[in-house]
Amino acid sequence: MIEKEGSMHTVREDLKVLDCTIRDGGLVNNFHFTDEFVKGVYDTCVAAGIDYMEIGKNNSPTLQSPEEFGAWNFCKEEDIRRIVGENNTNLKIAVMSDIGRTVSEELLPASESVVDMVRIATYIHQIPAAIELIEDAHAKGYETTVNIMAISKSSGDELDEVLELLAATPVDVIYIADSFGSFYPEQIKKLSAKYVKVARGAKKPKLVGIHAHNNIQLAFANTIEAMMYGTSFLDVTISGLGRGAGNCAMELMLGFLKNPKYNQIPVLEFIENYIVNLEKELDWGYSIPYMITGQLNEHPRTAMKARDENDTQYVDFYKAHIDQHQ
Amino acid sequence: MIEKEGSMHTVREDLKVLDCTIRDGGLVNNFHFTDEFVKGVYDTCVAAGIDYMEIGKNNSPTLQSPEEFGAWNFCKEEDIRRIVGENNTNLKIAVMSDIGRTVSEELLPASESVVDMVRIATYIHQIPAAIELIEDAHAKGYETTVNIMAISKSSGDELDEVLELLAATPVDVIYIADSFGSFYPEQIKKLSAKYVKVARGAKKPKLVGIHAHNNIQLAFANTIEAMMYGTSFLDVTISGLGRGAGNCAMELMLGFLKNPKYNQIPVLEFIENYIVNLEKELDWGYSIPYMITGQLNEHPRTAMKARDENDTQYVDFYKAHIDQHQ
Repeated sequence: MIEKEGSMHTVREDLKVLDCTIRDGGLVNNFHFTDEFVKGVYDTCVAAGIDYMEIGKNNSPTLQSPEEFGAWNFCKEEDIRRIVGENNTNLKIAVMSDIGRTVSEELLPASESVVDMVRIATYIHQIPAAIELIEDAHAKGYETTVNIMAISKSSGDELDEVLELLAATPVDVIYIADSFGSFYPEQIKKLSAKYVKVARGAKKPKLVGIHAHNNIQLAFANTIEAMMYGTSFLDVTISGLGRGAGNCAMELMLGFLKNPKYNQIPVLEFIENYIVNLEKELDWGYSIPYMITGQLNEHPRTAMKARDENDTQYVDFYKAHIDQHQ
Repeated sequence: MIEKEGSMHTVREDLKVLDCTIRDGGLVNNFHFTDEFVKGVYDTCVAAGIDYMEIGKNNSPTLQSPEEFGAWNFCKEEDIRRIVGENNTNLKIAVMSDIGRTVSEELLPASESVVDMVRIATYIHQIPAAIELIEDAHAKGYETTVNIMAISKSSGDELDEVLELLAATPVDVIYIADSFGSFYPEQIKKLSAKYVKVARGAKKPKLVGIHAHNNIQLAFANTIEAMMYGTSFLDVTISGLGRGAGNCAMELMLGFLKNPKYNQIPVLEFIENYIVNLEKELDWGYSIPYMITGQLNEHPRTAMKARDENDTQYVDFYKAHIDQHQ
């Protein structure tokens, strides 16, 4: 029996809304946002009562090219401070570390940074490296999360083993990441129960988070399903901005949450002032190729290509994928 | 305790997928579809294994103007036959009757029609008229459904009383209609349990159906939630075509259902050949004004106006609605 926590009409103090508009949106435009846009997201998050804002990735400029990627792929301290100053607000700042693209020596001690949280994105086969990064970031004074990617492809009890390994680390939050946008609420419910059990049972108890994608129009539904079954950290982006089918929309989440600390109006204001125009330049949201890769539990790389090329030969696309499954 | 029926991996024989692309899509363009388009939907439904196709409304030309509305608002027998012939297929044909806009004398006996099912759309205050129509259509030999609209605005035990009245009629299916696109899965689960209990307990047992809208991106999630808790008739439209935020997308539903009789390829083919172009002409799908009326459980008439006028002053729109709630 999987227990439900709270109801639609209660406030749960463990809930945290984490904005990743710049970080996940950065995958659409290689992180080439203007300072005005990033400051707009920051001001919106502060005014809307959002708990965390992930402002980008802290990849190393020695490993990825600053010609190819904008500032928010690297999140240099001076760049972040140009936007948030000393960040004397209730909003905490997060950055994401990709295993293999970050250099831990470049991570300042938390006392010298306006960053509060380091989120470590890892595939199952990179777990030992992820644990090193968790320990390093924790030792330097950061809150930490670990986002285990592509779990819909994990086999047997592999995921259980990984969760046990992570439970033994000092990490604060373990994330359910629906990398391929392939999960249904029924599966998310079971995953939440599994993660919550391990996270709460750890020697240092942890919270659980969810990062959903909208390939099969379930990003919001899966996020509230996870929340109902004990997940605390809820990733959102404004208007679902994010690669491909995008993410769980902040405006949907704030319309659902009952905690009066959250405020919908600044979000609508940002959408009106920035997103309406951005939608004319950038392409994200539900589309058939991403739906197909989601339904078939595949990495969306072929969908990325089809969308970039404006290829609407959906039947051929589908048949090519089905053939792989046979 | 609300019991779950089946799992993601089982086939439930009571499930029926009902396409309402032309009927709900007709609300976007006043039913001005070409014969080629309607035939395209029909052929797609047949090839995809869809169970029912709702081809339009059978409103009376004495009550609504054939100048204003296209043929599929009236569904004259000869118009339907021009598309489906004798319909010697496994696909059943449905039409929708709006209380107050149909004339029961115009409804042919089922033996003289290619129509199999009459779906009666009613507000709670119109129930006596709806019951008359149910009895008339049933007596003439049709399968019948009743779609109780705007239930999110019903108060107290009003809905219970209405369900008891409908349980005593010969109607075959009672529909949960999320007219304002305002329900969350948690509410849909409770509604499904309520409807299923009354429907199965009736002297003439009935099935339950769901017609969802996508205002808060939950049309698909709510449909599968309802299904899990005993709802059998699932309304969909190709690519979610429908007024405003649109409906539950057929391609999402067929990707989920495990019954091998359903086939995704004809649907993708129709999208490729017709929807890609239609999206350039007609406007439907998720948008902020419809999200706001959904979140606030309001009729979308203000959202319809904002969208028609391409008004993106979302903050003003929201504030005007919030003021009404205070």
